[in-house]
Amino acid sequence: MSFRASVLSLYPEMFPGHLGHSLAGDALRKGLWSLEARNIRDHGIGKHRAVDDTPFGGGPGMVLRPDVLSAALQGAAPTGDLRPKLVMTPRGRPISQALVRRWAAGPGLVILCGRFEGIDERAVEAHALEEVSVGDVVLAGGEAAALLLLDAVVRLLPGVMGTEASGEDESFESGLLEHPQYTRPADWEGISVPAVLTSGDHKAIFRWRQLMARAATRIRRPDLWAKYVAEAMGAIDKGDKIT
Amino acid sequence: MSFRASVLSLYPEMFPGHLGHSLAGDALRKGLWSLEARNIRDHGIGKHRAVDDTPFGGGPGMVLRPDVLSAALQGAAPTGDLRPKLVMTPRGRPISQALVRRWAAGPGLVILCGRFEGIDERAVEAHALEEVSVGDVVLAGGEAAALLLLDAVVRLLPGVMGTEASGEDESFESGLLEHPQYTRPADWEGISVPAVLTSGDHKAIFRWRQLMARAATRIRRPDLWAKYVAEAMGAIDKGDKIT
Repeated sequence: MSFRASVLSLYPEMFPGHLGHSLAGDALRKGLWSLEARNIRDHGIGKHRAVDDTPFGGGPGMVLRPDVLSAALQGAAPTGDLRPKLVMTPRGRPISQALVRRWAAGPGLVILCGRFEGIDERAVEAHALEEVSVGDVVLAGGEAAALLLLDAVVRLLPGVMGTEASGEDESFESGLLEHPQYTRPADWEGISVPAVLTSGDHKAIFRWRQLMARAATRIRRPDLWAKYVAEAMGAIDKGDKIT
Repeated sequence: MSFRASVLSLYPEMFPGHLGHSLAGDALRKGLWSLEARNIRDHGIGKHRAVDDTPFGGGPGMVLRPDVLSAALQGAAPTGDLRPKLVMTPRGRPISQALVRRWAAGPGLVILCGRFEGIDERAVEAHALEEVSVGDVVLAGGEAAALLLLDAVVRLLPGVMGTEASGEDESFESGLLEHPQYTRPADWEGISVPAVLTSGDHKAIFRWRQLMARAATRIRRPDLWAKYVAEAMGAIDKGDKIT
């Protein structure tokens, strides 16, 4: 069974969006993964198919109703569907490459996209939704976040990347940001690539790249650097060899 | 002059993607913002319009050439174009609502989307590109990140949100995650909304929401909580009143 994504949205026409093109789009057409976009409004209430109402306690905006969301979730993932159920929200846990790897190794995902002021908390609790965030910004809705998350997941599915797969070297796989990259021309507008990279000395190149990756991480992302150092310390405590 | 976005990509057909729908799409059609997707390959070299080459120093994948990227950037933003120039890369600075606000208040954005193993570092330096990241995950390319960033920016442009605009109450505007939300029905499958929200006591509601926002931030995002506390301390030092 290939990876199955079901997205719940008030704007199902936003899908597959950019994922209909390039490698993800080719993989979709080949059946390496599937994407179903379901309209939350199909489960709306009454003649006008209402999906939201004002928040209890007052305040601006509208909140998606728990009964509507619950019916939509039940429709997308009947009892026995073992796919993780996510809701994209700035209140959620920040995505990481480790989470993306775990999701890519599973049977698929059910992703609820919020809109308006938010969703009724009881729907989150009743369906044990995993709240997931893609950065500390406010979006018009969860759709952009769902598309980004699926972009990261789909490229890891077997057969999707083909010859463009570029292994373990990338940012976050090592816990460090990636080193800078250079390609032809070797001299461009008077700026040459760092000499070590054309030296043919593979040991020196490895050392230089490690150094640059560490420097970039330390300066740009003190948060990642702290984690990296803590893990290196842990490895020393266990007597592992540090590379 | 309305907000002008220019995106440089090897897959310009990915744009406007999901931004062609809903409020962002309506605003695009009304001219409240504009989006130009330019193909980096138009500046490719030789008969085959080559845009990339192998990395100096070895390693997997392909790197976008500095001469090609430079020509593409110069084409999108000739000298005198004052829009910030961004490149979406996991090596970049994480986006934040403060950055999004700053960009939304400006004349527009030029956004370069990388693909393959990365882009030649000299292009970043020569054009003083602002490196921006949307979370610690590896994407198939910068396009999903650019779409997400524009989603966050466009909703802040004058006239875009209309009556759905919901003010300052949202996550990150206060430095805290948002409190949970509840709407009708007041009793759903035996779970009632918290009694305080239907009490009519506005002061108690405000206090409860503050408490919930603080608890969520402290438990879910120790990083944000630390910043919030540091800022509150700073305010105390300056003799400001804490609310």
